[in-house]
Amino acid sequence: MTKELAIGVDVGGTNLRAGIVNGDGRILKRESIAVGDDKSAKAVVDIVCGQIAKLMSESPGQVKAVGVGVPGIVDFEKGIVHRSPNFPAWNDANIRDEISRRVGLPLAFDNDANMHALGEARFGAGRGHRNMVLLTLGTGIGGGLILDGAVFHGDNGFAGEVGHIVVEADGIECGCGGRGCLEQYAASRGFAVFAGRLAEAERREFLAAAGVNLHDLKPELVANLADKGNSTAVKLWEIYGSYLGVGIATLINVLGIETFVIGGGITRSWDRFITTARKNALAHTYRHHEGKLKILRAELGDDAGIVGAALEGLALL
Amino acid sequence: MTKELAIGVDVGGTNLRAGIVNGDGRILKRESIAVGDDKSAKAVVDIVCGQIAKLMSESPGQVKAVGVGVPGIVDFEKGIVHRSPNFPAWNDANIRDEISRRVGLPLAFDNDANMHALGEARFGAGRGHRNMVLLTLGTGIGGGLILDGAVFHGDNGFAGEVGHIVVEADGIECGCGGRGCLEQYAASRGFAVFAGRLAEAERREFLAAAGVNLHDLKPELVANLADKGNSTAVKLWEIYGSYLGVGIATLINVLGIETFVIGGGITRSWDRFITTARKNALAHTYRHHEGKLKILRAELGDDAGIVGAALEGLALL
Repeated sequence: MTKELAIGVDVGGTNLRAGIVNGDGRILKRESIAVGDDKSAKAVVDIVCGQIAKLMSESPGQVKAVGVGVPGIVDFEKGIVHRSPNFPAWNDANIRDEISRRVGLPLAFDNDANMHALGEARFGAGRGHRNMVLLTLGTGIGGGLILDGAVFHGDNGFAGEVGHIVVEADGIECGCGGRGCLEQYAASRGFAVFAGRLAEAERREFLAAAGVNLHDLKPELVANLADKGNSTAVKLWEIYGSYLGVGIATLINVLGIETFVIGGGITRSWDRFITTARKNALAHTYRHHEGKLKILRAELGDDAGIVGAALEGLALL
Repeated sequence: MTKELAIGVDVGGTNLRAGIVNGDGRILKRESIAVGDDKSAKAVVDIVCGQIAKLMSESPGQVKAVGVGVPGIVDFEKGIVHRSPNFPAWNDANIRDEISRRVGLPLAFDNDANMHALGEARFGAGRGHRNMVLLTLGTGIGGGLILDGAVFHGDNGFAGEVGHIVVEADGIECGCGGRGCLEQYAASRGFAVFAGRLAEAERREFLAAAGVNLHDLKPELVANLADKGNSTAVKLWEIYGSYLGVGIATLINVLGIETFVIGGGITRSWDRFITTARKNALAHTYRHHEGKLKILRAELGDDAGIVGAALEGLALL
């Protein structure tokens, strides 16, 4: 098992990362390449296959399988990418079959967050836990469900869209067409929402200190102000944490899962929000979860996607 | 397989229903008995074991397994009932081991909603679907997740507490200790909430027509008024449906599941809320779910719990 090698590929909107991974989750060799301006399905498939070929030629052992994670809504059964904000031209392209044809090895093709989740579950912060939910907090919220040790896909591969948990039934409009999605609060744009709800005097003073308009309020900026002792900035991070906690509470109540791994750029401000998030998650769930709930910071960083993709590939053997 | 018999027991707060079930989900013989005033763990275990013994003695074939479903928060691993509103005296009682000792057959012991879910998934409205969520709408909201054909329990058996999906981050207080739980809106008590939010004149006129105080507003009463053409009553049912739709949307987004089976007393007014529920569920999810989403009315009624319990018993063999 541990001697088997696979290649994991994590396709991002800007960079593509790939690596040769062994069954212990160790990356033996890695590559990173810019995706470039041509983001058509054909161009990206060319880059993916080029990187796979390069790694295969340099591999210390026989590569048995390949996994490719891509951002967007992936129909896992059909291998189709329905919608990818990073790759709008991909609409309904069958990326999987094209890669599979050219690579000639068992190929796992999945949403990148699912790959991240599997990587963290097996060899990252979630190791040792049979069930786990990954959330990635950034400009949006990604997610993946690991149930009984494997990625859960639901009926069509759309499981884990945790950014679209509805936390305010009649809340802020979301790009998905809905309203009040968690992603409108517990991702970057949430800070503009929270600041917009402050009393006018406090809001004005805060935006003056920030030196930006409401809509340009980014997590890093609020974190910088909090570091300088700005009490409104500290409060906004607590509001952020409380919304994240509500989203986690819903996941606990629906799934009965008590292990959460959180990744993404916003975790750079971990200490500013995690206590409130945890407290609010517990406040919205049965007391039996207290003492058992684990909200852990992701450990593998950018490697999670590579490792998870390779593991999903190996699982096909 | 289909020749194997099991006994399924569905323990309710008022009545206990039991039956001999074959592998085709057919109830060959059934019993129903009042639970009585003594709701202690010992008294209820006596009744459960008495009914099992009676059915065993009358069985047309050898009974191979038993399943018992109980209301409340069940620790599936340990067989402990943490909290049951119907049986407050059960706090942390190990009902399973006591029944198991006396029955001497493989015993499945689970939350009643999980048993209902399994019954409906295999032989009711959800048959043919690998993944399904059951919601029961009544004074509270029960739920059960069927993933890949089996009940999903999460880490401790608490999965499927769909009544505690948070739909209003800062909403109405819930008995679970949280706020804004779906159960405060999409169960009986929701009608008082919705009516309480009407403009004062409309609220007064409506309550006068209803002839009750706000807090005594029950679904049946609102349904009766709607039947008589009361437009506010019709509107309240649509608001009800919209909240149910929001809860379903969150389940779709988290689980990627497109088959929902709805049971419980409130489904008597099915036509009054289902169109809005479906519309609102789709409004809060990706368009790919349109045309695939099935929100089905439960078919097995009170039998679902008996059938599901027996099936969970047979699954142990």
